[in-house]
Amino acid sequence: MAVIAGCAPSDRRGTSDLAPTGDAAARIADGKPPAGYRDWRLISVAREEGDLDDIRAVLGNDAAIRAYRDGTTSFPDGAIIARLAWSFDASEENNKSFGRRQSYVAGVPKNGVQFMVKDSKKYAATGGWGFAEFNDGKPADPSALQSCYDCHARIKDRDLVFSRYAP
Amino acid sequence: MAVIAGCAPSDRRGTSDLAPTGDAAARIADGKPPAGYRDWRLISVAREEGDLDDIRAVLGNDAAIRAYRDGTTSFPDGAIIARLAWSFDASEENNKSFGRRQSYVAGVPKNGVQFMVKDSKKYAATGGWGFAEFNDGKPADPSALQSCYDCHARIKDRDLVFSRYAP
Repeated sequence: MAVIAGCAPSDRRGTSDLAPTGDAAARIADGKPPAGYRDWRLISVAREEGDLDDIRAVLGNDAAIRAYRDGTTSFPDGAIIARLAWSFDASEENNKSFGRRQSYVAGVPKNGVQFMVKDSKKYAATGGWGFAEFNDGKPADPSALQSCYDCHARIKDRDLVFSRYAP
Repeated sequence: MAVIAGCAPSDRRGTSDLAPTGDAAARIADGKPPAGYRDWRLISVAREEGDLDDIRAVLGNDAAIRAYRDGTTSFPDGAIIARLAWSFDASEENNKSFGRRQSYVAGVPKNGVQFMVKDSKKYAATGGWGFAEFNDGKPADPSALQSCYDCHARIKDRDLVFSRYAP
């Protein structure tokens, strides 16, 4: 957990964000997951079939959430977007209650936890975004992250961000 | 937005929760969605097929999140769980980038926003939980909510709560 000093201004509602946003970016750059990202606010949810075969949540730190809600198409430096994913599990207990097979829930963590960190200078070579992935807290090989950028670069008109905010 | 007075204690990280939890419960009882619930922290995500046909996120206020993380099987009074849902939309733009059909995202809000409010005295007749649903901010007919309890009552060993916390 981040050390929290003093009072949180009323427009800063996330958690790890009670510590300066830079701390999270610095930790990611240092090969560590940022403290408290699991407390960040929800951007959206999704289901990926195919090889990924997961159900996922996309969370944002304060700067990211603010940008989304402002309707920006260009995220400010300091914005961080986190993608969590879990196995897509049929829920037998839910189905039993519903009386039919219809319910799929998040199971075990899957496909790592991924982050996009906006820093237009530091990550200028990859569209202003740094990409990171952690598996059980351990950083993925940076060379494996090139494919993140290659794919995200296809969505330039939305500043390389696929996820839209779920109202 | 709730009026925020003073400093948020460091263990209170949600948003609307910066206002007393009771405010959210009172608003729900008063037929209004609680301020700031969209900022609450994520409990889990799910996909419902069938008539519901949605993708959903379950969020919790501070008391609910704390209870989940403490591994409780009985939620304290003041815990509130919110269920948001959206249409389950194939994402053509994501699929184009992936090069195949695999991506489903949250579309428009669907099936209302539902809340479970724990108050063991006030809602003693329904297992200690009050159930509410809002569609475009308007409360659903209380008589329509009996079915919420009827179904949730089937999962008594988990205090009527279906959603498990997604790690």
